[in-house]
Amino acid sequence: MPVVLDGKATTGKVMEELGAQVEALSERGVTPGLALVLTGTDKYSARYVRLKKKRAESIGIYTEFHHLEETTDEELGALIQRLNQDPKIHGIMVQLPLAEGLDELKAVNTIAPEKDVDGLSPNTLGRLLMGEECYPPAGVEAIAELFKRYGLEMEYKHWLVVGDSNFLSKPLAAYLMNKRLNVTTAGPNCPHIPELAKTADVISVEIQKKHFITADMVKEGVILIDNGNNYEGSKVFGDVDPSAYEKASAYTPVPGGTGPMLIAMLLRNTVRAASAASGV
Amino acid sequence: MPVVLDGKATTGKVMEELGAQVEALSERGVTPGLALVLTGTDKYSARYVRLKKKRAESIGIYTEFHHLEETTDEELGALIQRLNQDPKIHGIMVQLPLAEGLDELKAVNTIAPEKDVDGLSPNTLGRLLMGEECYPPAGVEAIAELFKRYGLEMEYKHWLVVGDSNFLSKPLAAYLMNKRLNVTTAGPNCPHIPELAKTADVISVEIQKKHFITADMVKEGVILIDNGNNYEGSKVFGDVDPSAYEKASAYTPVPGGTGPMLIAMLLRNTVRAASAASGV
Repeated sequence: MPVVLDGKATTGKVMEELGAQVEALSERGVTPGLALVLTGTDKYSARYVRLKKKRAESIGIYTEFHHLEETTDEELGALIQRLNQDPKIHGIMVQLPLAEGLDELKAVNTIAPEKDVDGLSPNTLGRLLMGEECYPPAGVEAIAELFKRYGLEMEYKHWLVVGDSNFLSKPLAAYLMNKRLNVTTAGPNCPHIPELAKTADVISVEIQKKHFITADMVKEGVILIDNGNNYEGSKVFGDVDPSAYEKASAYTPVPGGTGPMLIAMLLRNTVRAASAASGV
Repeated sequence: MPVVLDGKATTGKVMEELGAQVEALSERGVTPGLALVLTGTDKYSARYVRLKKKRAESIGIYTEFHHLEETTDEELGALIQRLNQDPKIHGIMVQLPLAEGLDELKAVNTIAPEKDVDGLSPNTLGRLLMGEECYPPAGVEAIAELFKRYGLEMEYKHWLVVGDSNFLSKPLAAYLMNKRLNVTTAGPNCPHIPELAKTADVISVEIQKKHFITADMVKEGVILIDNGNNYEGSKVFGDVDPSAYEKASAYTPVPGGTGPMLIAMLLRNTVRAASAASGV
């Protein structure tokens, strides 16, 4: 029977540990602070940012929610600059995608590396590629954390990373390049995915195609990391077909796999940043 | 017969084109400026930096050679900051490795992204990973340029990138991830290189092991990119065994392949930076 990499249960444990860390920091006079920046009027994004805020507060993190419904690159840049300088704020999370017309690269490039707890800036991604210290994107941390909690080895494995986003697949490949393993990358429309999947020990997929990875594509004992979020009404489906689970040694379910981990990883980076900034 | 990707001949053409571009810029009142920064007393590095300076001057680029034989992180940082502000300087090349005891990440992180013509800073590497505009490291540009000049397709190929340096193999993989192709990476001590090499359409190798890639490892028609520099006295040998050339459709020789291209690519980035900074 394959091991189910339970993101929900793992999140519970991580949040408990983080709560204790925040308490310990408070006792030394440090309250981790997270600024959440949202642009535009997308309701789904607004709901998600409010959920991040609520979770942060549930473990004692100080939060600020800056919602710029209508804004310009200059105003957004000025806000980020101000937050970079604010000693109460240890982490800055800018919700992507930005509202239409705003320059995403310019915005994320303004975030100070030491406060880039969501791992969005070029500086962070470059450090990740170099194998230097940084706060990796939550999706990367979620996968690394599940491997750690379930005692799965990363080393000597051959990974196939399918997808090409700047917040998950590309940084994941950059992260893996600094481990003792092989990583093969493939874009979402690559025609070679089936043959590449057959030889992979671990497959991470993020292409938003429901049940794309099927049992016949994968080898016996594979570890399947499913980052798909394909909504049909209120139901969500992954990029991995459940038929493939039977051949897997471990897999992340959808829902309940990597998804629930994301906010906890953002908060952990915030607590780390607070600890680093205060030297406590 | 395989195509020899002749870096020396290609460099000649590139330098000629660059000379014409520098002349055109001069006529509009812009002289591209390159600052060369060397730390420590290593003679080989000093010779290489002087060669860069000479080549730059040969096509009309203004140069400054800052040789800090004994220095500190603070002094080096202050020099880079000053060069960042200097309007005569469009590109800053800091020779790596730095003298012992100096903080390399700190130094390269100080270079302004718009003057990072050697592609060393985390910001540049992050942009490369994101597929955003930047000045890629010379080694990456050399490979891309040889492909272009010889009309070789990058797309739909499966690349194997063997090596793990921050100035070539990791940025090359980051660059390739943004193309429509598959890239597999392997560190220098990876035990799986022979089996991975067998299925690769293109192999880039940078592990400093003389003649490591042999004919029996590669498939018929492979393109071999050899970044090895294994010196034996005054002779230099690549990481690819010449026996493998016969199975290749194209290859870079050592010497005379990617090596001679490196300075020209640095100078091209400098000319580009001058053009971008002056809006000419």
